[in-house]
Amino acid sequence: MTRTLYLNGAWLPESEAKVSVFDRGFLMADGIYEVTCVLDGKLVDYAGHAARLQRSAQELGMALPLTEAELLEVHREIVARNALDQGLIYLQLTRGVAERDFVYPPAGTPPTLVMFTQAKNVLENAAAEAGIRVALLPDLRWGRRDIKTVQLLYPCMAKMEAKARGADDAWLVEDGFVTEGSAATSHIVTAEGVLVTRDLSHALLPGITRASVLELAAAHGVRVEERAFTPDEARAAREAFITSATNFVVPVVAIDGATVGDGKPGALTRDLRRFYIETRRASAI
Amino acid sequence: MTRTLYLNGAWLPESEAKVSVFDRGFLMADGIYEVTCVLDGKLVDYAGHAARLQRSAQELGMALPLTEAELLEVHREIVARNALDQGLIYLQLTRGVAERDFVYPPAGTPPTLVMFTQAKNVLENAAAEAGIRVALLPDLRWGRRDIKTVQLLYPCMAKMEAKARGADDAWLVEDGFVTEGSAATSHIVTAEGVLVTRDLSHALLPGITRASVLELAAAHGVRVEERAFTPDEARAAREAFITSATNFVVPVVAIDGATVGDGKPGALTRDLRRFYIETRRASAI
Repeated sequence: MTRTLYLNGAWLPESEAKVSVFDRGFLMADGIYEVTCVLDGKLVDYAGHAARLQRSAQELGMALPLTEAELLEVHREIVARNALDQGLIYLQLTRGVAERDFVYPPAGTPPTLVMFTQAKNVLENAAAEAGIRVALLPDLRWGRRDIKTVQLLYPCMAKMEAKARGADDAWLVEDGFVTEGSAATSHIVTAEGVLVTRDLSHALLPGITRASVLELAAAHGVRVEERAFTPDEARAAREAFITSATNFVVPVVAIDGATVGDGKPGALTRDLRRFYIETRRASAI
Repeated sequence: MTRTLYLNGAWLPESEAKVSVFDRGFLMADGIYEVTCVLDGKLVDYAGHAARLQRSAQELGMALPLTEAELLEVHREIVARNALDQGLIYLQLTRGVAERDFVYPPAGTPPTLVMFTQAKNVLENAAAEAGIRVALLPDLRWGRRDIKTVQLLYPCMAKMEAKARGADDAWLVEDGFVTEGSAATSHIVTAEGVLVTRDLSHALLPGITRASVLELAAAHGVRVEERAFTPDEARAAREAFITSATNFVVPVVAIDGATVGDGKPGALTRDLRRFYIETRRASAI
């Protein structure tokens, strides 16, 4: 089945969804994106993703071409047009089409807004059952990872390198501390049962699922520390896991070949996944 | 006059040159580029640009869809089709169209190759006469700047910030040393007349014009030191200049508001610009 995409106000079959080669997203990675999970045909944690999109746009001096209400409407319509039950909505906003120049185009240049869906069984996720193995790699990304830009070449390279090393994905390390995964937030649970997650800064993305999971953990009496942790702490952890919009909570069972805990998904990790799915499924809109 | 672009073997008017929104260049900045200067309808320093393109592709595991001979032929044909006398040819290669995934698409996925021209009076350049003013800004780019990728958001941001500060462009600084300009190599000439240019590493692009100018300087008896230099050294320099494919050699007359030398384009800078144009115009193909 061919998908129906949204592109600048039009609904198009995916084969016809094209942008000019002069789009600044194509020529200069001058674009931002969001990924919202869809469950039961509804939007999961939507408010967080919509707010982060606005923040990314603001940080880069871009303007969204839709009001908040219109944006929500398009999210709902793309779900309906694609009869999406489970999966994700990908949204990308670029600074639009202009002659190639490092100087931004004039104010008023229409941005490019594209959205498409991907079907994915987010509830029954083999990785959630078995856990994933991560490789530690240097974090060579730019210095404003708090902005969700399409500059994703290095995360792609890191994922490929992790796979070449026999792992499933990468955790990135900078100045002796883990920053985050290639496309997910990194978390560990210490021997004392403390959930440790890096504090927010320019070094990592303010994860929407991260925020929800920290809130759920605290609500269930888990002690949460928001601070950077080292690869050694991660290897010595009782549990480790990642969070992201479409992975929810997925256990990490090995780090650079070293088994985490007993090598099986941890109890708190499993609980947090269950809490997340239960509460966010109930609150999806 | 509308331009004729090259896109994956086809010649198209610019309004029809479009790529899928699933192009990895658009979604993930998974692409590289080159800019070759055109003078008298001929290609300047072409061998260097063609070699660097191959190197960028190799570093990222991409394959060019054209042989060396075919690539040269397309460069010549785009000049002819656009009756280009002076300006540049922009070339971009991406990993092609595929479902969005951090994992690279299967081997054999056709890459996307696009080329277009920009007309520009490269010989009579006001900046070459008056010099430019640069602002020093932190270098927040990724860690593999030796690969010429389309991850150009930060250089765009830096150029905008430099302009907001009343300068023309930015020089980027990392760990106390100048790396390079937003889209050019940075050079200084010390009080002793030594030409200082940062040595090549992952921190900066191996400039084609840089290499030619260093060769010309040495041939004219100038002492050349390839090493990193500090902002303080730059501000105290007798001369400063940038090199790039379409700027050739352009003087820098102020750095963060501090006048360089007597505030006028330096003598060596002017000589190097003349040497470059004379020799590269003669050797253009």
